[in-house]
Amino acid sequence: MKFGLFGGGKVGNLNPLGDSYGYRDFIRYIIDAEELGFESAFLVEHHFTGVGQVSASLSLLCYIAARTSRIRLGTAVVVLPWHNPVLLAEQITALDVLSEGRFDLGVGRGYRKNEFDSFCVPMSEAQDRYTECFDLLMKSLTSKERFSHHSKYWNFEDIIVEPAPVQQPHPPIWMAAGRPEGIAYVAGCNYNVLLDQIGSVDETIERVRVFLDAQAAKGLPRDASRCGVTRALHIVNNDEERRKAYARRRETLKNIGELAKKPGGFNPETFDDADIAADDAALIGTPEEIGERLQRLADGGVEYVLLTNATATRESLLTFSEKIMPYVKSRPPALRAVGQR
Amino acid sequence: MKFGLFGGGKVGNLNPLGDSYGYRDFIRYIIDAEELGFESAFLVEHHFTGVGQVSASLSLLCYIAARTSRIRLGTAVVVLPWHNPVLLAEQITALDVLSEGRFDLGVGRGYRKNEFDSFCVPMSEAQDRYTECFDLLMKSLTSKERFSHHSKYWNFEDIIVEPAPVQQPHPPIWMAAGRPEGIAYVAGCNYNVLLDQIGSVDETIERVRVFLDAQAAKGLPRDASRCGVTRALHIVNNDEERRKAYARRRETLKNIGELAKKPGGFNPETFDDADIAADDAALIGTPEEIGERLQRLADGGVEYVLLTNATATRESLLTFSEKIMPYVKSRPPALRAVGQR
Repeated sequence: MKFGLFGGGKVGNLNPLGDSYGYRDFIRYIIDAEELGFESAFLVEHHFTGVGQVSASLSLLCYIAARTSRIRLGTAVVVLPWHNPVLLAEQITALDVLSEGRFDLGVGRGYRKNEFDSFCVPMSEAQDRYTECFDLLMKSLTSKERFSHHSKYWNFEDIIVEPAPVQQPHPPIWMAAGRPEGIAYVAGCNYNVLLDQIGSVDETIERVRVFLDAQAAKGLPRDASRCGVTRALHIVNNDEERRKAYARRRETLKNIGELAKKPGGFNPETFDDADIAADDAALIGTPEEIGERLQRLADGGVEYVLLTNATATRESLLTFSEKIMPYVKSRPPALRAVGQR
Repeated sequence: MKFGLFGGGKVGNLNPLGDSYGYRDFIRYIIDAEELGFESAFLVEHHFTGVGQVSASLSLLCYIAARTSRIRLGTAVVVLPWHNPVLLAEQITALDVLSEGRFDLGVGRGYRKNEFDSFCVPMSEAQDRYTECFDLLMKSLTSKERFSHHSKYWNFEDIIVEPAPVQQPHPPIWMAAGRPEGIAYVAGCNYNVLLDQIGSVDETIERVRVFLDAQAAKGLPRDASRCGVTRALHIVNNDEERRKAYARRRETLKNIGELAKKPGGFNPETFDDADIAADDAALIGTPEEIGERLQRLADGGVEYVLLTNATATRESLLTFSEKIMPYVKSRPPALRAVGQR
């Protein structure tokens, strides 16, 4: 099983001394993660939050590319409706070149109402803008010939994006999906899927199965390492820490808000500690408890977990690396045994 | 006298092995420049050239920020009409934080007809878009409160750009100017000026004087280090190399094209080798000849020269650093003796 980091938290003002210190701490954290055997770091992009979330994710990743050599660097996600697809493509190929092919491109359509309001983009246009931006972005990343493009939101004449990406034909694409049709669509496009952090262990295993079956149906190798299962991580050492972790989890579920609402009628507002403890989606607990939960995922065929770490410290990475990583074994998964790999 | 590099050339395909190698060579070159005592590196931004000019300049600078510690990093220039001013501000403040306050922000309105055509932006809108983008960019860089903005091209509601720049209230602004009114305007705004590489030594000295006088007229300290005098540099060791350098200079002047046309009726097409040799704007020659030309600039009050180096190699930087830098002394300039500094 591979483990990556999924950067959900604040960066700018993590350090009370100010933005620069916050950025420096975060960069150090990713360097530590590389050293301790983590596979990847995926950064969010959010704007105008006032609480220091990363806005220019690709800029920060360019810097981190220079300070690391092995860890993969990703976005989770670039919100396409905010961006000029061609200028975005230029930043992406630059990062892919600078990181020597370590970039993973997660894309999304955005979900925060206040971000749409701030950009003065109606949410009703989100899907349309996303689709148009994605199509032109992919053309920009892959075309070796000059081309022109005219569509509803963007017009370009006789362009070619330079430099060419190192990863050909383009960096791996990651898209969030939850429903079976969505997961199958992503798999069928030969893209990678990001699975949410609120799906239970059983739900997640089922989603991975849907993904692998959809790959197989398109004649692609069944490859569970292309399913990034996002999980909240909170290592606790005592009851007090556990209570705090549960409170934080409740807060996270509230903040995810609309996005967190499962078809079944999930309502984080009514979750008490017992509900949080019973929900096996989050990795909250002692190293042993977390290892056990991860083993259930591994046994079900999950090969790649992206962690949103509640305490973004070297110490927590070290604990994870020493006390959890070695004990989670990827089994030859039953799900994959029938596949072609 | 301080010396910086002004990146005019190709980067992507400088190395015949491909874009990645070209980028790697260029990064190495900037690291060498820092080591050899150069003050700064200013990067161009051009799009869709097909010859590997840098497009995502701010991305590349973020990477270089991580590989250097002292050299200042600049743009010359970011072409504002292509950019979303708020997303640009986010990239700029990220770079300023990541470089620990080493960023110099050169801005311009663009001049290449084919770039305007490719972006499907009429050249007639250039000034208007430039002004609007610049105003919103400055507001975004400096506002400590949330704000809204509604204008012809851009609309934002209730935004704040994060992180805050390290250099307060904002990174130094650089603008190109040539005519006295333009130079005086830039000086009066407390910005820095980029002077072109085709003005003769006497013209350049006169422009620096205009800049210093305009600073003084606004009650600002007379500071010639805020005039970046761009110069083509081509160190030659023999007649053969000199002939090639002259041919290259002629090509450069042709390529600058419309921009190169001086009010006096300058026409590079008719320039022969004797004309090139007689024109003292370029730094073409042996280290001694170049040193002599730079000394004339220094004697006239020039304190900061930005070099477009024809042979972007460590060897040429080393020659410049060892054989030219030490021999050019900044004199207590007559121009400044009457000023307040």
